[in-house]
Amino acid sequence: MEVNADNFFKAAALDKPRVTNKVGSNVTLINVMQIAGLNTLGISIARIDYAPLGQNPPHTHPRATEILTVLEGTLYVGFVTSNQPAPNRNKFLSKVLNKGDVFVFPAGLIHFQFNPNPHKPAIAIAALSSQNPGAITIANAVFGSDPQISDDVLAKAFQVEKNTIDWLQS
Amino acid sequence: MEVNADNFFKAAALDKPRVTNKVGSNVTLINVMQIAGLNTLGISIARIDYAPLGQNPPHTHPRATEILTVLEGTLYVGFVTSNQPAPNRNKFLSKVLNKGDVFVFPAGLIHFQFNPNPHKPAIAIAALSSQNPGAITIANAVFGSDPQISDDVLAKAFQVEKNTIDWLQS
Amino acid sequence: MEVNADNFFKAAALDKPRVTNKVGSNVTLINVMQIAGLNTLGISIARIDYAPLGQNPPHTHPRATEILTVLEGTLYVGFVTSNQPAPNRNKFLSKVLNKGDVFVFPAGLIHFQFNPNPHKPAIAIAALSSQNPGAITIANAVFGSDPQISDDVLAKAFQVEKNTIDWLQS
Amino acid sequence: MEVNADNFFKAAALDKPRVTNKVGSNVTLINVMQIAGLNTLGISIARIDYAPLGQNPPHTHPRATEILTVLEGTLYVGFVTSNQPAPNRNKFLSKVLNKGDVFVFPAGLIHFQFNPNPHKPAIAIAALSSQNPGAITIANAVFGSDPQISDDVLAKAFQVEKNTIDWLQS
Amino acid sequence: MEVNADNFFKAAALDKPRVTNKVGSNVTLINVMQIAGLNTLGISIARIDYAPLGQNPPHTHPRATEILTVLEGTLYVGFVTSNQPAPNRNKFLSKVLNKGDVFVFPAGLIHFQFNPNPHKPAIAIAALSSQNPGAITIANAVFGSDPQISDDVLAKAFQVEKNTIDWLQS
Amino acid sequence: MEVNADNFFKAAALDKPRVTNKVGSNVTLINVMQIAGLNTLGISIARIDYAPLGQNPPHTHPRATEILTVLEGTLYVGFVTSNQPAPNRNKFLSKVLNKGDVFVFPAGLIHFQFNPNPHKPAIAIAALSSQNPGAITIANAVFGSDPQISDDVLAKAFQVEKNTIDWLQS
Repeated sequence: MEVNADNFFKAAALDKPRVTNKVGSNVTLINVMQIAGLNTLGISIARIDYAPLGQNPPHTHPRATEILTVLEGTLYVGFVTSNQPAPNRNKFLSKVLNKGDVFVFPAGLIHFQFNPNPHKPAIAIAALSSQNPGAITIANAVFGSDPQISDDVLAKAFQVEKNTIDWLQS
Repeated sequence: MEVNADNFFKAAALDKPRVTNKVGSNVTLINVMQIAGLNTLGISIARIDYAPLGQNPPHTHPRATEILTVLEGTLYVGFVTSNQPAPNRNKFLSKVLNKGDVFVFPAGLIHFQFNPNPHKPAIAIAALSSQNPGAITIANAVFGSDPQISDDVLAKAFQVEKNTIDWLQS
Repeated sequence: MEVNADNFFKAAALDKPRVTNKVGSNVTLINVMQIAGLNTLGISIARIDYAPLGQNPPHTHPRATEILTVLEGTLYVGFVTSNQPAPNRNKFLSKVLNKGDVFVFPAGLIHFQFNPNPHKPAIAIAALSSQNPGAITIANAVFGSDPQISDDVLAKAFQVEKNTIDWLQS
Repeated sequence: MEVNADNFFKAAALDKPRVTNKVGSNVTLINVMQIAGLNTLGISIARIDYAPLGQNPPHTHPRATEILTVLEGTLYVGFVTSNQPAPNRNKFLSKVLNKGDVFVFPAGLIHFQFNPNPHKPAIAIAALSSQNPGAITIANAVFGSDPQISDDVLAKAFQVEKNTIDWLQS
Repeated sequence: MEVNADNFFKAAALDKPRVTNKVGSNVTLINVMQIAGLNTLGISIARIDYAPLGQNPPHTHPRATEILTVLEGTLYVGFVTSNQPAPNRNKFLSKVLNKGDVFVFPAGLIHFQFNPNPHKPAIAIAALSSQNPGAITIANAVFGSDPQISDDVLAKAFQVEKNTIDWLQS
Repeated sequence: MEVNADNFFKAAALDKPRVTNKVGSNVTLINVMQIAGLNTLGISIARIDYAPLGQNPPHTHPRATEILTVLEGTLYVGFVTSNQPAPNRNKFLSKVLNKGDVFVFPAGLIHFQFNPNPHKPAIAIAALSSQNPGAITIANAVFGSDPQISDDVLAKAFQVEKNTIDWLQS
């Protein structure tokens, strides 16, 4: 098979603003499904748009570390460490990022980005250490799966009443 | 340095029942912190105790796949797929496991085990594909981190009022 | 393709005793051939039954480290280090394991487990750091291959007469 | 050791234009030397500035694939395949990238980016699949090493007279 | 630290014949212990000398595949597959190699080389896919370890009388 | 599928001299294209012939480290480090190798071997840490690609006039 440049190219329009979703963000990921030439090469790239007060909500990438830089605006970002011994047990590490700053979200840890500006959008470019990093939005996976996880299980897991879980699932 | 058998051994008492925590489970993990000889070898093992109606609540392992077998009792187990295209988007896959059954939780995906029996405990042995798999309990990392994640962020992420988040964080 | 829970499940009956072989053991391995969902995930699990005075004879796993815990009975286990400089040259490391103890057999090293109890069986659960770890029983591979390795070669390798090799091969 | 957010952060000023070098480019790489928390995580990020008619000259990354997106301007980019059988032998694959386009340079292949605009600078963000990707500028490594490679060797390698090599080395 | 060429060099005298051991071979391995610059680079090289009728007896490399070419003489080589299902169960694959032939011994499998010529020595160059491949000579590890493995265990494993084992161990 | 020894064998005639090319060398590589059994095993082997004053010109292996030993003659070898901070920036490390010496060329770095003897050929055996290491001859990839890289780009990259580039490309 003769290779050609289009196997390694995508007119991805990463310079264009995207309409954001109900929590105020939009992730445009270019991975091996968009560029076949990425196969076995262990990397992908994304543009993330944030509406004013928008967020890329708490999520994990099961197969990748993420490195992010801010193109426009300001982001309040953070991740939470795993169930380690003190003093690092479920520690929340956060930072306010300005334009040009760089931050790393280690593989598999729960993280988010939030645009604290009520008037202006923000933009970031992120890269991920997998051709197919995956993304698990905690709210969707825990409270919005198909079918839903039993509210008995979730009520005990989150130590609340079932009607609180039902509310989260609605 | 002369090696000896104790570098590869732990009197782990994995045959002994453990007192379970507030959600009715207890994970006894033997990893490279307990057995130094596991260094670079990519595996660890755990006993999990479940009280009647107890659960090992929704969590992920950021660096490992888990394979589990039931030693005593019955377990209702499941995991949720990532944000993939339909029909696999946030799909909840579940199964009731009896003694001797085996189930796999792929690396980084949110999963749980629940003991549906109101009278009898359950026991499982699980193995993980890392010398230090890590564990992130979703409830603890999202609603119980130190310091806590802002309830503004979480209210929008989970699409509920801030007082619901405060309740989950308390 | 829509995934479902059965891709990650096997009714493996790991709680049930197995009939043991001529050296008094039986390994029931659950790997990617039994659970297709294990593909690329780097782990498998096994139940091992030991008759009274039975053994899982000297063998290696060419692609995996093994971690083992004793469920029932007592096991005398060991492995031999490789051709390293003294004091670790072909050193035999051994340990008597009781119920609940954990032991590690590093990838590729020759190891065995022996049930020293003349009256009671023993049971172990072992996990391996590969979806397809492989197993090479030394006696079978060296003296029982198909076709057999020339007894000229083996006699010199083991520094014995050819009739001793023939005896081992019969 | 207690971790903190600064282990994962760098005020890298990737939004700021850089003074370009003699071939009209400047690569600002943020790798594990700038952010210690990247250790073992397999990724890094860079801003690249291009002067009008400037270039990031032919080079390789010995330990990483690169994925790049154009932030400002236009880039003419390309890479050359290895000594494979025809029709892919030393094939030069090139593309003109506009703002928002994405291109992949597979690990270890010789590639470059050139700003064809005589009046305007260009800017790109690139990510690399290693915490320490390395960069080998062909001109510098072949004709500008310390000490220099013998011009006898290079004259024969490049099938030119030694005074041509001397010119390239000066 | 300033690197220099000696970090990547060894005056290994791989052109010189070696005195062979009691089974008629001698392996001169150049790995990371001889050349520190091999660290993390995943390869090593060896010269192997074979006396007339000498052999490199059945052994495994726990962490490497081997590729071998014959420099002088003739070699009868082989390896045995693992405990797979028929028709590949403990199958002995063998070949007579002449000067210039190449053969591969997959990682972790038991293999040997034998010089069938009663008058002339043989020489091979082998490369291994690890900076520290390890070698386990079956005869030494099973019957010559320090301390010795119990002859009770080995008698049952090899299905022979204890005095046969004692003979192998002497 | 039944495996057999021919899956792991090649009558490669690595003992036979090869006709050398215009720069005085010939690399006979045995990789996974010649021996299918090398698949996933991460190693390959080569014979390299050098005419008197011949060279294996500056090149890289994008996916492998090389370890080399001299079978006949003398070789002047070297590699250049990457764009690191001083004192290791584009440092040229070289060594004269005699018969039996061993040298390592780290993955992805530009290296060459030159036979300084005007009367006698030289021979080396090299091994590479990949089943498909790839080779990029700098002269061919930079000045001899198909189609050619624009001489505008190369003139600036190498800081010479376009007619010098045209000369190198002819």
